[in-house]
Amino acid sequence: MTITGEKGRILFAVTGWDPAGWIDAFAKAAPGRPVVLAPDKPDDPTIRYATVWKHRPGVLTNLPNLKVVFSVGAGVDHIFADPQLPDVPIVRIVADDLTMRMSEYVVWQVLDHLRQGRLYRELQMNHSWREAPQPAAADITVGIMGLGVLGTDAAEKLRQLGFRITGWSRSPKQVNGVACYAGTGELAGFLGASDIVVVLLPLTPDTKGIIERDMLEKMKPETPFGGPVLINAGRGGLQVEADILEALDKKPGEKGALMAASLDVFETEPLPASSPLWDHPRITVTPHVAATSDPRHLVPQIVRQMADFEAGKPLENLVDRKAGY
Amino acid sequence: MTITGEKGRILFAVTGWDPAGWIDAFAKAAPGRPVVLAPDKPDDPTIRYATVWKHRPGVLTNLPNLKVVFSVGAGVDHIFADPQLPDVPIVRIVADDLTMRMSEYVVWQVLDHLRQGRLYRELQMNHSWREAPQPAAADITVGIMGLGVLGTDAAEKLRQLGFRITGWSRSPKQVNGVACYAGTGELAGFLGASDIVVVLLPLTPDTKGIIERDMLEKMKPETPFGGPVLINAGRGGLQVEADILEALDKKPGEKGALMAASLDVFETEPLPASSPLWDHPRITVTPHVAATSDPRHLVPQIVRQMADFEAGKPLENLVDRKAGY
Repeated sequence: MTITGEKGRILFAVTGWDPAGWIDAFAKAAPGRPVVLAPDKPDDPTIRYATVWKHRPGVLTNLPNLKVVFSVGAGVDHIFADPQLPDVPIVRIVADDLTMRMSEYVVWQVLDHLRQGRLYRELQMNHSWREAPQPAAADITVGIMGLGVLGTDAAEKLRQLGFRITGWSRSPKQVNGVACYAGTGELAGFLGASDIVVVLLPLTPDTKGIIERDMLEKMKPETPFGGPVLINAGRGGLQVEADILEALDKKPGEKGALMAASLDVFETEPLPASSPLWDHPRITVTPHVAATSDPRHLVPQIVRQMADFEAGKPLENLVDRKAGY
Repeated sequence: MTITGEKGRILFAVTGWDPAGWIDAFAKAAPGRPVVLAPDKPDDPTIRYATVWKHRPGVLTNLPNLKVVFSVGAGVDHIFADPQLPDVPIVRIVADDLTMRMSEYVVWQVLDHLRQGRLYRELQMNHSWREAPQPAAADITVGIMGLGVLGTDAAEKLRQLGFRITGWSRSPKQVNGVACYAGTGELAGFLGASDIVVVLLPLTPDTKGIIERDMLEKMKPETPFGGPVLINAGRGGLQVEADILEALDKKPGEKGALMAASLDVFETEPLPASSPLWDHPRITVTPHVAATSDPRHLVPQIVRQMADFEAGKPLENLVDRKAGY
């Protein structure tokens, strides 16, 4: 059994992305590792690595020399959606570029709520010169759900802007300048302390549908905005959209009322044109663009991991299959 | 000649603001210093300090015991608009709260341009799920005009988000992590190096109308946005609005073409309802709210300065009448 090319080939298996930039970036960073979009034949022995994003289930089976699967987007729930996932190590992408982009998105949306972007855009449309009462960042507590690399970086950047920060994670963590809560027992305390809740959780069987009525009813009823604000830049599967819409339509101060939401992810993506989320005046919809994977930045890091792996070094950012992230 | 109250009275002379919050804050921070909105009589000897924002010209004359004038907003050009300004020390407000709020505004607007807020709001309106090419903060250079307390803080916060930063000031400065340019001789170099230009200059005879065709023609023609972006959160008198509109209507790549602008300040405020700025699809208008003066934060600092002054300590943040700021 021979492997074509000394270093084997890389399978690039994605759904919904243009592969051109990735193929270019691999050609530049790893000229000795040809990239293919599909196996050439059953039991293709030439494929040593797979780089995937929502790959077609089954496409990774029968690759006898597959050594590692690399996820090229933040999160790995899309990988576990494949019931025929082979038993090889799975590596999450942890890249400064991805982290920075996610924090850009979070800070942008938090500031748009703090600085009343929706109101001022409406006033502009009406040629209306009117100053609204303006809390300072220091008057607002932003709660981050998920204190991994992304959540920790977003927390730090919001803190630098003057916000008070709370954080919630599955297992107890300590983060500089962040009032940390952990586990289901402390979720209500966390939600009750946060004016704006930013969700950056991984999607796992434990977190699926976590943003539903019961959680929304635990959010802080009185805030400087008149009610709590939700930002989900994690995964659409974390949220129950019917419950979010219901919460937005409750009266300010009513139990479970939500003031506004920024959603980058959805139960079904692309978000169907018929979804009522598009037209809700207090929802900001973005099309899953919070942290775009940029091949210029990510590919060199993946190629470095391949070389390290072949040199016998341990893989970084290995996914825990049991925890699901 | 007696002064009512041991410590004299404070004249609070503003235009366009509700004085209630200020009077409350002074009552709390300085119960021994009554606040008045106007002198009680000609040559009123009871007034020892004036706290002003766009005060009515002439209102500060004939106050024989006036010791200090405090500006309660960022910038002091409004004070020099009074030809009968008495010859007493003038103190600028330099408050963390004001600085933080200005940085909130600058970061918010810079991120709204970086993350294509206008485009995504339009796509949402059309129920259109489409990802646009997205430069990272690290691909963008933000140029800050004015490297005082406000400009330096905004620069630092943008740098923490990953932006490359240039700065321009009248006299040479050194700021950590900022490529600094100074004086009219280096203005073209600064503008040519900056994708987004944020104006935080004081309004002086030297800077009046500085944002006009000649400056716009020196801005970077090719940027990741297709053209340069202007943010003015300084003073309306810095800009020539007809020239900004002309620059926005030029074709991308054409000399002097501007891609987009965020304007918080205007030649005439309130911005007249008939101004074409309101409806321009690539202008964000906010009604001079970038850094609102919050009496809860500013008054205790002014009262502390009064006490220090009476204890013989030097006044901080004194205005240089010659430089005009």
